[in-house]
Amino acid sequence: MQQKWIEKEFEYDGTQLASLHNYLQYGLAGDSIVSWIGPCDIAFDKMADGEDVLSQSAIRGGKMLHFILEKFDVRLYAAVALQRLIASLAFEILLKKSPQGLRRDGDDIFVGEKKLSISVAVPSYRSCLVHFAVNINNENTPVPTVSLEDLGVEPIQFAKDLMERVVSEDRSIVFATHKVHGVGDF
Amino acid sequence: MQQKWIEKEFEYDGTQLASLHNYLQYGLAGDSIVSWIGPCDIAFDKMADGEDVLSQSAIRGGKMLHFILEKFDVRLYAAVALQRLIASLAFEILLKKSPQGLRRDGDDIFVGEKKLSISVAVPSYRSCLVHFAVNINNENTPVPTVSLEDLGVEPIQFAKDLMERVVSEDRSIVFATHKVHGVGDF
Amino acid sequence: MQQKWIEKEFEYDGTQLASLHNYLQYGLAGDSIVSWIGPCDIAFDKMADGEDVLSQSAIRGGKMLHFILEKFDVRLYAAVALQRLIASLAFEILLKKSPQGLRRDGDDIFVGEKKLSISVAVPSYRSCLVHFAVNINNENTPVPTVSLEDLGVEPIQFAKDLMERVVSEDRSIVFATHKVHGVGDF
Amino acid sequence: MQQKWIEKEFEYDGTQLASLHNYLQYGLAGDSIVSWIGPCDIAFDKMADGEDVLSQSAIRGGKMLHFILEKFDVRLYAAVALQRLIASLAFEILLKKSPQGLRRDGDDIFVGEKKLSISVAVPSYRSCLVHFAVNINNENTPVPTVSLEDLGVEPIQFAKDLMERVVSEDRSIVFATHKVHGVGDF
Amino acid sequence: MQQKWIEKEFEYDGTQLASLHNYLQYGLAGDSIVSWIGPCDIAFDKMADGEDVLSQSAIRGGKMLHFILEKFDVRLYAAVALQRLIASLAFEILLKKSPQGLRRDGDDIFVGEKKLSISVAVPSYRSCLVHFAVNINNENTPVPTVSLEDLGVEPIQFAKDLMERVVSEDRSIVFATHKVHGVGDF
Amino acid sequence: MQQKWIEKEFEYDGTQLASLHNYLQYGLAGDSIVSWIGPCDIAFDKMADGEDVLSQSAIRGGKMLHFILEKFDVRLYAAVALQRLIASLAFEILLKKSPQGLRRDGDDIFVGEKKLSISVAVPSYRSCLVHFAVNINNENTPVPTVSLEDLGVEPIQFAKDLMERVVSEDRSIVFATHKVHGVGDF
Repeated sequence: MQQKWIEKEFEYDGTQLASLHNYLQYGLAGDSIVSWIGPCDIAFDKMADGEDVLSQSAIRGGKMLHFILEKFDVRLYAAVALQRLIASLAFEILLKKSPQGLRRDGDDIFVGEKKLSISVAVPSYRSCLVHFAVNINNENTPVPTVSLEDLGVEPIQFAKDLMERVVSEDRSIVFATHKVHGVGDF
Repeated sequence: MQQKWIEKEFEYDGTQLASLHNYLQYGLAGDSIVSWIGPCDIAFDKMADGEDVLSQSAIRGGKMLHFILEKFDVRLYAAVALQRLIASLAFEILLKKSPQGLRRDGDDIFVGEKKLSISVAVPSYRSCLVHFAVNINNENTPVPTVSLEDLGVEPIQFAKDLMERVVSEDRSIVFATHKVHGVGDF
Repeated sequence: MQQKWIEKEFEYDGTQLASLHNYLQYGLAGDSIVSWIGPCDIAFDKMADGEDVLSQSAIRGGKMLHFILEKFDVRLYAAVALQRLIASLAFEILLKKSPQGLRRDGDDIFVGEKKLSISVAVPSYRSCLVHFAVNINNENTPVPTVSLEDLGVEPIQFAKDLMERVVSEDRSIVFATHKVHGVGDF
Repeated sequence: MQQKWIEKEFEYDGTQLASLHNYLQYGLAGDSIVSWIGPCDIAFDKMADGEDVLSQSAIRGGKMLHFILEKFDVRLYAAVALQRLIASLAFEILLKKSPQGLRRDGDDIFVGEKKLSISVAVPSYRSCLVHFAVNINNENTPVPTVSLEDLGVEPIQFAKDLMERVVSEDRSIVFATHKVHGVGDF
Repeated sequence: MQQKWIEKEFEYDGTQLASLHNYLQYGLAGDSIVSWIGPCDIAFDKMADGEDVLSQSAIRGGKMLHFILEKFDVRLYAAVALQRLIASLAFEILLKKSPQGLRRDGDDIFVGEKKLSISVAVPSYRSCLVHFAVNINNENTPVPTVSLEDLGVEPIQFAKDLMERVVSEDRSIVFATHKVHGVGDF
Repeated sequence: MQQKWIEKEFEYDGTQLASLHNYLQYGLAGDSIVSWIGPCDIAFDKMADGEDVLSQSAIRGGKMLHFILEKFDVRLYAAVALQRLIASLAFEILLKKSPQGLRRDGDDIFVGEKKLSISVAVPSYRSCLVHFAVNINNENTPVPTVSLEDLGVEPIQFAKDLMERVVSEDRSIVFATHKVHGVGDF
């Protein structure tokens, strides 16, 4: 899995959640993760998560740290499990900084009842895509939120640390699939 | 995913890592997780992990808390990702008790450099199997270890808490695969 | 597999044959079957079956009993086999009422040469969808048809019986996949 | 799917439920179904169905009509659905002869409470295998049974009719997977 | 795999690279390959290969021999491997005519540095599609090319020979998947 | 895909055709190809190809150049297509040396009617395995053969060239699967 930090800031509007995005925009062919800073505002007709559509939840934030991951040749169950590992890894990094009240619940990270992150995992023809984003500040968020600023965490270093750990976790999962015997039935 | 705490103590010798084990022994058909207490001693010819075979590592412990999970219709990448979520969930539970020096690394939990757990995920025809176990004490372990006793954690309650959270995480992953749109190419 | 009888009558126009339809309209996440009464009229550009497009067959009926089933994580061969089991189950229910001349042929039920039902099974990203519908009366049908009214069958009870049997058949198929050993090569 | 009637009588003992059986014994490469007459006696350690092992059910019959089907590149859900279609097709053929009390329940056919058939579907590496068998007489059966002799049905013609219909159903399912559009999300 | 030579000449503009094309246009259900003569001109928004989009490469030719192959139930790795076998087979046929400087490189055939062919393999819901085309002359090609006219090869006979060999190779690959045992782990 | 030339000579007896062989013997985890020189003698009960079993063909050679390739997460159709590309690549390398009468037919290379190579591709739980071997001399071969010695080809350089091209072809196939859009239905 390749990784890339993108210097340029731009809004996440849901169109980045597309197969080949990381290849066509940044030349990363195959499994990859990219990260950048920008606002978030997703129109209802671009929402991939039917639960958000049903609940009519706005998804936005004034300044967020975004990640788009593409993983080829996995089905959605695996991609959602990977998405939760990303949340776990983010949680583990943040624990060292600011453990008070921090918790992971599914694909989300909270401090107490305040939400730090948003995420979705979706299938495409050949791959699954994950969007994971954490608030850098709390501007314009539609629900009670907490931000990296609140936690005293510098976003760019956090982004690079998280990408590094995601890439490493993926490499180690792949290795784990290449070294075990199959087992028979009882 | 069904769960079951098994009262009877018995040794884990590697033969429990088999498809249909939880069905044929405990009547749990389909995805399931069971847990019990017992020693651990795996003969070299029962080791599923080639890395252990190559490194000639003994795998044993005098008293461990064992989990066998069977998940149908996933490929090994997903099962390994799930295995690591199990380690994350165990880590999150133990954090509340005894955070000092606790860390997850892949499918293992450590306190400092001492190993708390062992784990392997393997494929069968129709399913993948995960064995996850944590030391209850440090008797007869072949490497420097730490145990639930060291951490002051009662094993049966821990087993039930972990199974509860694994079942809940799996349910929520499955739900996440049933509520999202697919996305097109860019 | 969840089931739901929908009281409201509305036309089936082909747009209901879509992934997540049963979730977004009726809150049923995962495998599900719903049924309702309404006319049927499918525009050519909404026809999913290329054979109908090639033969320029109109697909319509004045009053039909509709079923939309979504089954996740199966490929189309399995979904078509399931579609035919639905036809078989409908056939078995109707046999008790009105056996004379009743027969199943693939995904269709006939009485003599008159067609009682229409059906199609299609793939989406994550699931397959089945539309199955039987004539409640013979109004506006483009070919010689027979209807539940002709057979003296009350549609709502029939819908509920059929959904019950489909759900039960699916549950029993799933169980059958969770209790058998794999076999070796000869 | 190729079909073959085997003149020679021999016992079904469970070893025939193996990938490539029809190829290595009868030269039928790929999807195939064969049928023959013989007794049935399956040792416990050859039973593929864990439910039989758990219930300690004997599986035997003095004279049965056997079918072994191999279908490549399908998963077990599809194979079990196909197995039930075989039971449906057998049921439909027998209806014309002897409708009184005849019913299909899952993969079994009954007349009243007497069992006419046995069946199992199992996975191998590359294919799934189905064994389906109907009693020709009631000798040596461990449960209350009914037989083709009781129904006045000649076994060889029945075997050929059923194989013909199974091959035709499979062909028509495959065609149904080659002529439909995929559908989008709602 | 069915094959068909199409007498009518028409332009390849990228819209032919679609699932069910060979069925809806020529009645070939299932795996198939068709071939025809026509110009080639693909608008940028119809280009399936992101590499062409990134490099802003024009894809066109005044007179080319086109092939569209659809293979169901394979994933893209297999379809690309098959695409390269098509290039190999074309190479092997042309070797007999005009061996000087001929070489295959991935999915392309060259004579020296001049390109004879273009190709792409893409996934759809249920199948993969391959477009393979060779220049009949060098009119309007955007890069240095060589053509069947240069090699003294008659296109219609070449098309029929190549389709024959592709169909035969596919049949033999399928047979090879139906006659081998699976192997265990070491 | 990793590659390794093995200096030590040893017999190929069929047991090397096993998942994880290249990992457990040479430390190559994941997709890999290894090559070595040795005799070949496969006992009937180790033959993976049912066709050889049916025809009672001996498979042996006094001195052969062996290749074992393991490719994870592909189905057998893809592995057989890859096997034929290996034969194509070997053919293309040999063409430069000794074009007279050389031809590829499926997974075999011939000079006239004399066989240069043997090959089989088989599935395991998680991967497919390919054995490909060419005669270094014609000692002890059970059919009319030709050898690298006859063609004046030095085996070690040929082995390294072929592994290099196989690795390169695989890399380029994988890249081709990471850069294309999926296509819709017509």
